[in-house]
Amino acid sequence: MSLKGNAIIGQSGGPTIVINASLVGAIQAAWDIDEIDRFFGAVHGMDGVLNEDLCDLFREDPDTVEAIKLVPSAGLGTCRLKPKDKDLERAMEVFKAHDIRYFFYIGGDDSQLACHRVSELAKSSDWEMRVIGIPKTIDNNLVVTDCSPGFGSAARYAATCCQAVGRDAEAFGNLEVVEIMGRNEGWLTGATSAARPTPEAPPHLVYLPEVKVTREQLIDDVKAKYDELGYCVIAVSEGFAFEGEDRVTSSSQVDEFGHSRLGGVAQWLSDVVEEGTGVRSRHDKLGNLQRCFSATASQVDLDQAYAVGQKAVYWAVEGQTDIMVTIERENDDPYQWECGATSLMTVAGASKAVPREWINETGNDVTEEFVTYCKPLLTGRACELDTGFSSFPKFRLHRIDCKLCAYERE
Amino acid sequence: MSLKGNAIIGQSGGPTIVINASLVGAIQAAWDIDEIDRFFGAVHGMDGVLNEDLCDLFREDPDTVEAIKLVPSAGLGTCRLKPKDKDLERAMEVFKAHDIRYFFYIGGDDSQLACHRVSELAKSSDWEMRVIGIPKTIDNNLVVTDCSPGFGSAARYAATCCQAVGRDAEAFGNLEVVEIMGRNEGWLTGATSAARPTPEAPPHLVYLPEVKVTREQLIDDVKAKYDELGYCVIAVSEGFAFEGEDRVTSSSQVDEFGHSRLGGVAQWLSDVVEEGTGVRSRHDKLGNLQRCFSATASQVDLDQAYAVGQKAVYWAVEGQTDIMVTIERENDDPYQWECGATSLMTVAGASKAVPREWINETGNDVTEEFVTYCKPLLTGRACELDTGFSSFPKFRLHRIDCKLCAYERE
Repeated sequence: MSLKGNAIIGQSGGPTIVINASLVGAIQAAWDIDEIDRFFGAVHGMDGVLNEDLCDLFREDPDTVEAIKLVPSAGLGTCRLKPKDKDLERAMEVFKAHDIRYFFYIGGDDSQLACHRVSELAKSSDWEMRVIGIPKTIDNNLVVTDCSPGFGSAARYAATCCQAVGRDAEAFGNLEVVEIMGRNEGWLTGATSAARPTPEAPPHLVYLPEVKVTREQLIDDVKAKYDELGYCVIAVSEGFAFEGEDRVTSSSQVDEFGHSRLGGVAQWLSDVVEEGTGVRSRHDKLGNLQRCFSATASQVDLDQAYAVGQKAVYWAVEGQTDIMVTIERENDDPYQWECGATSLMTVAGASKAVPREWINETGNDVTEEFVTYCKPLLTGRACELDTGFSSFPKFRLHRIDCKLCAYERE
Repeated sequence: MSLKGNAIIGQSGGPTIVINASLVGAIQAAWDIDEIDRFFGAVHGMDGVLNEDLCDLFREDPDTVEAIKLVPSAGLGTCRLKPKDKDLERAMEVFKAHDIRYFFYIGGDDSQLACHRVSELAKSSDWEMRVIGIPKTIDNNLVVTDCSPGFGSAARYAATCCQAVGRDAEAFGNLEVVEIMGRNEGWLTGATSAARPTPEAPPHLVYLPEVKVTREQLIDDVKAKYDELGYCVIAVSEGFAFEGEDRVTSSSQVDEFGHSRLGGVAQWLSDVVEEGTGVRSRHDKLGNLQRCFSATASQVDLDQAYAVGQKAVYWAVEGQTDIMVTIERENDDPYQWECGATSLMTVAGASKAVPREWINETGNDVTEEFVTYCKPLLTGRACELDTGFSSFPKFRLHRIDCKLCAYERE
């Protein structure tokens, strides 16, 4: 089963707060493995593979590698590339040219699909290769795995923000709409409710894309909470839309240059609830910070991200291939987990919504099942980097000489 | 000089991360002062005064009071009320009815003006009273004082955010526009540059409302930085507009002080730079979190906020009135400061812009003078509240019986 050669790893899609922990887990695991001769980093993921933009990860300073574990966002750079057939063939050429026998790819469902296609192509090209996907997405929508590394820290930031803006909204006696990432799945939005320290704490209403509510119901919900508490925080996913209404971005709200002034769901829904209730409403969109604000990261998430990177390398060397490393839950409370594996085919291009029974009947909160599932994933504050003042450590990215001609994507 | 009676304190305008530290400083100072018989909190600031919505702060649990020092946003509630003559007369009636001889008001320049008017009216009404303003604003635009409590923590959050989204932008090789609070003054925006750990760290360009640049210059600036670094983070104040181009805000969007509710600069400017450079640009608006995200608060800011509240009480009892407590800088490095005082008239309704010489000639960064001024104010991480999971302690707000008829504002 022993396969000696070089390895390559890349990061793909939207970065997360802990995606570098997976990378560092893989690098540190590979240090002591004889089968892996050289370990290349693909700069900007699959783009780096196609362009032969590779760096030598074993030439990075070990202290820097250790420190980068706590640095948010993809240290090797990332990309949003869905490789076509020609791209995959080019990737195989690059792998062969550099004697790459191990391919690790850190990403979401699209990246796992890319991984699976690489694996299939390697088999049909008669190039012995081990291909392992490493899970990552703040959306938490990967199937089979208990959770996706990156989710817990994004959720912890979003929950912290909801608690904070709740204080601001309460001081004014206002409404506040918070927009949270998630086009089709409401895991992150639901997590802000699951993390509430008390039933009265914000957010008081959460709307997930999985269950639509009518405009009338939402306004009634807000009125009732406002009457009870004197303020109300409403958390919604960016994919929010009312039952029976297509979301319209008003063309009348443009500035003098003709640019839309609509700030997305938060601003739009804030206007809707202000008009519907007569109470002043403000709004915040948590935006890209959900992928990179490390000062409130989750320790459990960081540990899991590291473990899936480490296990990918160990298991590849042991002979496994065409799998994605998963998290398996052993127990809810105290939370116990270990790494498992699933075939890439089962996760490639698939996504997991919040189960209907984990959202309450009226569709404005999550249930106890969601809380039991979610709360452990946000446990512990991981990161003590004083990010306003300390410089983030960076890879030196020692480039490898190209062996092929330049590549033009279609 | 001894004046015995009751005291009242209120919080006004946009809350800050450390505004409760000023309140707690005042309460804890008053505990041991014989001249202050009862200490009332005005619920929702001047609104609470006018409506006689008062609570007894000496009945709050001392441990809770201590804990609230670290809780963001106004614990007594806030308001955005510019009192009219009739309102001020009503306030005097309330003060007389409750034997209030000490009035403390925590707020920005509008609130200091309200304070000054109360002080004048007390004199002309022959009601002996000590009136002291306590400075607060994330905008840092109060005159005379070295800085405004609330600024350092907002700046620290904004700087942390710029560092974080910089990682995300670098991973993609994108542009990123970050919108920071500040209608007319660029203190907060400038602070994100001042806090940079290295010259290459984000934000790479900052545009303050004090100096306008042309559309062409800004796009050239962005192109140059992008060519140098492979990504670029641009921080702008919400009041940003190009030289020679007025940005129009919808006249319907104004707050209770008549200030326009600005928004959408990030999205608009992001479109402009993407179009002008051909590089993908994304954007984030830091929004209300700048007033309430406590996990990255500044220790210096927290200490100063506490001190100005404490000194207000001490100095009022010693006989001072019609003043605002200030921060006086003794030394830059190591930063040394103490509290001072200035007449309310000098600060009322006045505002301090960033000096022209603290912004570089081309208007895209701050100078070393700004850095020397600003950096100490962001020093130290103050708050270890695990805000995603811990409940924020709250006042019990024991209400006082009303002694007057209900009041209707004009």
